[in-house]
Amino acid sequence: MSDVQDLIHDLVAANRILAHEGLCDAYGHISVRHPDNPNRYLLSRSRSPELVTEEDILEFELDGTPVEETELPLYIERPIHGSVLAARPDVMSVIHNHCAEVLPFAITATPMRPAISTARRLGETLPIWDIQDKFGDTDLLVTTNEQGHDLSVSLAGHKAAIMRAHGCTVTGTSIPDAVQTAIALRNNASAILEGLRLGEIIYLTPGEVGATSPGRVSLRGHDRAWEYLCRRAGV
Amino acid sequence: MSDVQDLIHDLVAANRILAHEGLCDAYGHISVRHPDNPNRYLLSRSRSPELVTEEDILEFELDGTPVEETELPLYIERPIHGSVLAARPDVMSVIHNHCAEVLPFAITATPMRPAISTARRLGETLPIWDIQDKFGDTDLLVTTNEQGHDLSVSLAGHKAAIMRAHGCTVTGTSIPDAVQTAIALRNNASAILEGLRLGEIIYLTPGEVGATSPGRVSLRGHDRAWEYLCRRAGV
Amino acid sequence: MSDVQDLIHDLVAANRILAHEGLCDAYGHISVRHPDNPNRYLLSRSRSPELVTEEDILEFELDGTPVEETELPLYIERPIHGSVLAARPDVMSVIHNHCAEVLPFAITATPMRPAISTARRLGETLPIWDIQDKFGDTDLLVTTNEQGHDLSVSLAGHKAAIMRAHGCTVTGTSIPDAVQTAIALRNNASAILEGLRLGEIIYLTPGEVGATSPGRVSLRGHDRAWEYLCRRAGV
Amino acid sequence: MSDVQDLIHDLVAANRILAHEGLCDAYGHISVRHPDNPNRYLLSRSRSPELVTEEDILEFELDGTPVEETELPLYIERPIHGSVLAARPDVMSVIHNHCAEVLPFAITATPMRPAISTARRLGETLPIWDIQDKFGDTDLLVTTNEQGHDLSVSLAGHKAAIMRAHGCTVTGTSIPDAVQTAIALRNNASAILEGLRLGEIIYLTPGEVGATSPGRVSLRGHDRAWEYLCRRAGV
Repeated sequence: MSDVQDLIHDLVAANRILAHEGLCDAYGHISVRHPDNPNRYLLSRSRSPELVTEEDILEFELDGTPVEETELPLYIERPIHGSVLAARPDVMSVIHNHCAEVLPFAITATPMRPAISTARRLGETLPIWDIQDKFGDTDLLVTTNEQGHDLSVSLAGHKAAIMRAHGCTVTGTSIPDAVQTAIALRNNASAILEGLRLGEIIYLTPGEVGATSPGRVSLRGHDRAWEYLCRRAGV
Repeated sequence: MSDVQDLIHDLVAANRILAHEGLCDAYGHISVRHPDNPNRYLLSRSRSPELVTEEDILEFELDGTPVEETELPLYIERPIHGSVLAARPDVMSVIHNHCAEVLPFAITATPMRPAISTARRLGETLPIWDIQDKFGDTDLLVTTNEQGHDLSVSLAGHKAAIMRAHGCTVTGTSIPDAVQTAIALRNNASAILEGLRLGEIIYLTPGEVGATSPGRVSLRGHDRAWEYLCRRAGV
Repeated sequence: MSDVQDLIHDLVAANRILAHEGLCDAYGHISVRHPDNPNRYLLSRSRSPELVTEEDILEFELDGTPVEETELPLYIERPIHGSVLAARPDVMSVIHNHCAEVLPFAITATPMRPAISTARRLGETLPIWDIQDKFGDTDLLVTTNEQGHDLSVSLAGHKAAIMRAHGCTVTGTSIPDAVQTAIALRNNASAILEGLRLGEIIYLTPGEVGATSPGRVSLRGHDRAWEYLCRRAGV
Repeated sequence: MSDVQDLIHDLVAANRILAHEGLCDAYGHISVRHPDNPNRYLLSRSRSPELVTEEDILEFELDGTPVEETELPLYIERPIHGSVLAARPDVMSVIHNHCAEVLPFAITATPMRPAISTARRLGETLPIWDIQDKFGDTDLLVTTNEQGHDLSVSLAGHKAAIMRAHGCTVTGTSIPDAVQTAIALRNNASAILEGLRLGEIIYLTPGEVGATSPGRVSLRGHDRAWEYLCRRAGV
C-alpha cells in the first residue's frame, strides 16, 4: 500500500512539473499504472495539472471506468491512458499534452526525429496519428476506447506519438521517465524549429540514437533531472 | 443585485487573467453586458487590466455614456464594446487586446483559421477589419460609435475580428467564454506562426470545427480552465 | 529643488522599468536633462538598471564631465546622452539599450518603420547609424563626444536611431515618454519579426502615423501605461 | 586557503547564474582551475546547477579522478573540463551547456560568428566539434579523456566550441569571464536567429572584433555585469 502512496506522491509531483515546465496549461494529464494491479491506473479527476493534489487522484479500470463510483468530473480523454496501458505492458506512465513547441509538428506533415543528444530517448522517429483517418470529422478529442485503441495501434512500440491538430501522447517506463521524455520531445521540437532558420537539420544517426556510454546506466539510480524538476515545481 | 456583484467579481478576475496570461499589457479591456439591463454594460475606468479592482468598474450606456456622471478618465475605445453589444444580442462579453501573437495577423493579409483543436471555438475563419477602408487615415483607435458600428458590421456573426495594425476584438457568451476564446485565438496564432517554419499548415476541416463529442457539453458546468486561470492570476 | 527630487525618483523608476520589461539587462542606461540647467543631465553611476537607486544618480555636464568629482565608475558611453541632449533641445530624456527584439534590425539592413498602432509614436522611419562609417573599426561603444555628435547628426529630428551591431538610442520629451517609446520600438520590432513569417508587412500609412484622435491628447494627463509600468516594476 | 573559499563561493554563484539566466536546465556544469594547483580543478558533484551548494564542490585531477575518494555520483562528462584545462594554461574556467539558443547552431552547419557588440569577446569565429568524426556513433556524451582531448584539439585557441547535436563548451580567464562569454554566445545566437528573418546578417569586421576603446580595460575592475548577475540569481 505504501507503494501506491509513493506513486500518488510522484504523480502529483509530475502534474506540478508538467505545469511548471510549460508542458501543460489548463489541459493535459498524466497517468500511472497501478503497482498492484496492471489492469488499473491512477489519474487525477478533471483538474488542471498545476492544481492537482493527492486528494484528486482516482483509480480507473483500463476501460476508463472509475473503480469507485464518483460524481466528480472526469477527464473525457481517459481512453488515451487506458488504451495505451492495455496495448503496452512495458509502459507504466502515459502523458497527454498540447505544448506549444509540439503543436507545429501536429499541424504540418513534418516527421519528428531526434536532432539533439537529450532526444535520443525518443527513438528514431515518432508516428503522427490522425483521428480523421478512421473517425472522420470529430472535435479531435479521444473520447472512446475505440479511438484510444486506434491511437495505441499507431503508437505501436514508439515512445510517443504526435496527434494531428491536437498534441502528443508520451509513454514512460516510470513517471520520471515519461516526464523527461515529454521534456526531451519539447526541447527537440524547439531546437528543430529554431534550427530551420539557419538551414537543413542534421538529425542524429540511427547509431547515435541507439548508443549508450558505459557507466551511464549505473548513474540512473541517481536522477539529477528529477531532483531538479521537483525542486523547481516546489514539490 | 447579487448577480451584478458576481459579474463584477468575474470581470475583475478576467482583467487580471488577461494581464497574467500576457493578452493585455498596459492596454486592452474587457466588458460584460449588464445582467438586469441589456442596454448597459460594465467596464473599468481607464486603467491597465492588471491593476483593475472592483472599485474601478463603471456602468455605461451602449452609446458609451457613463450612467453616472464621472470625472474619472475613461477608455476612449468604449465604442468597441457598446457597438458590438448593440449589434450582437448573443454576445455577453467583449474583449479588445493587442497581444503579440495576434499582431502578426493584423499587419499582414493572412486569414486566421483554426489549426489546433482548442481553436475550434473560433469558428471557421475570422474577418479582418481595416479602419482605413471607411475612415481613411486615423490613429487606428476606435473612438466613435460610427467606427464601432463599422467594426461590428465586419465582425457580423463571427466570434472575433482581427483589427488591421491594431489587434483584435473577441466576443463571448459569458466572461469565461470570451477569455478562453481570446486565449485560444492566441494559441492558434502561435501554433501557425511556428508551424510555418516547418511547412504548409493543415487547418481543421469545417466538419472538425463544427463537431462536438458526446458528453462534452455536460462537462461544461465544470470549468477546469476557468478554475486554473483564476488560480494562476491570484484571484 | 523638489523638481530635481521628483525627476530622480522617476529616473530610478525608469531604470527599474527598463530592466523589468526586458529592455535592459546588465547594460543600457537612461538619462534626463536637469530641470534647472538645460546644460546638465542626470544619469546613474555605472550600474545595471535593475540595481540603480537614488544614491547612484549623478549630475553631468553635456560633455560628460561629472559636476562633482567622483571616483565612482561611470558609464563610458555617456557621450550618447550628452551629445543628443546638446543637439536636441526638445529632448528631455535619452535611453540607450540593446534589447533582443531590436538587435535583429541592428545586424541587418532592414529599415524600422511602424506597423502597429502603438508604434505611431516612432514617426515614419528610424535612421540606422553605423559607427564604422566615420570611425572605422571600433569596439562599437560610443566613448567620445565626437562619436556621440556623429550619432546625434544621424538621429537628426527622429525619435530614435538604430545603432548598427549595437542597439538603439531612444529620445523622449519626458522620462515616461522615452520609456514608452522604447517599449513601442520593441513591440513594433517583435510584430514585424513574427509577421514576416506570414508574408509581406503592411506598414502604417504616413497619414496614420501623423493622425490623432480628438480627445486623445487631453487623456494624456492620465498616464495609464506609466502607472502600470511602475506597479509591475515594484516602484 | 581563503582563495579557494572565494573561488568556491564564485563557482556556486556561477552555477546559480547559469540556471537563472536559462543557460543550464537540469544539465550543464562549470569548473574552475584550483588556485594552488594548476593540475586540479573544482567542480560540483552530479547535481543540476540551480541546486549546487558549497558542500557539493569537489576537487579533481585533470584526468577526472576525484582527489578524495567519494561515493557521490559525479558528472560523467568531467573529461570536458580536465581536457580543456590541460590543453589551455590560459583557461581558468570551463562551462558546458546545451542552451536553447545555441542548439540550432549545433544541429546545422552554420558557423557561429559575432554579429553584436557584446559578442566581440567570442573572437572571430567558433569551431564546431563533431564527436562522430573520430568516435563514430556514440550517445554524444564526452565520457573519456580521449574524447575530451579531441574536443580540446578542435577548440584550439578559441574562446568556445559548438558541439554537434549537443551544445557548447565555453572557456574563461576567470569564472565571471566564462559566464559572461556563455551569455554573449547565447545573445549572439539569438540575434542571428531573429535577424535571419529580416535578411542577410552583417557580422562584425575582424577589426571590430579586435578593437578596444581606451578606458575600457581600466573599468574592468568594476564588474557591473557580475554584480547584476549575482543579484538576479539571489546570490
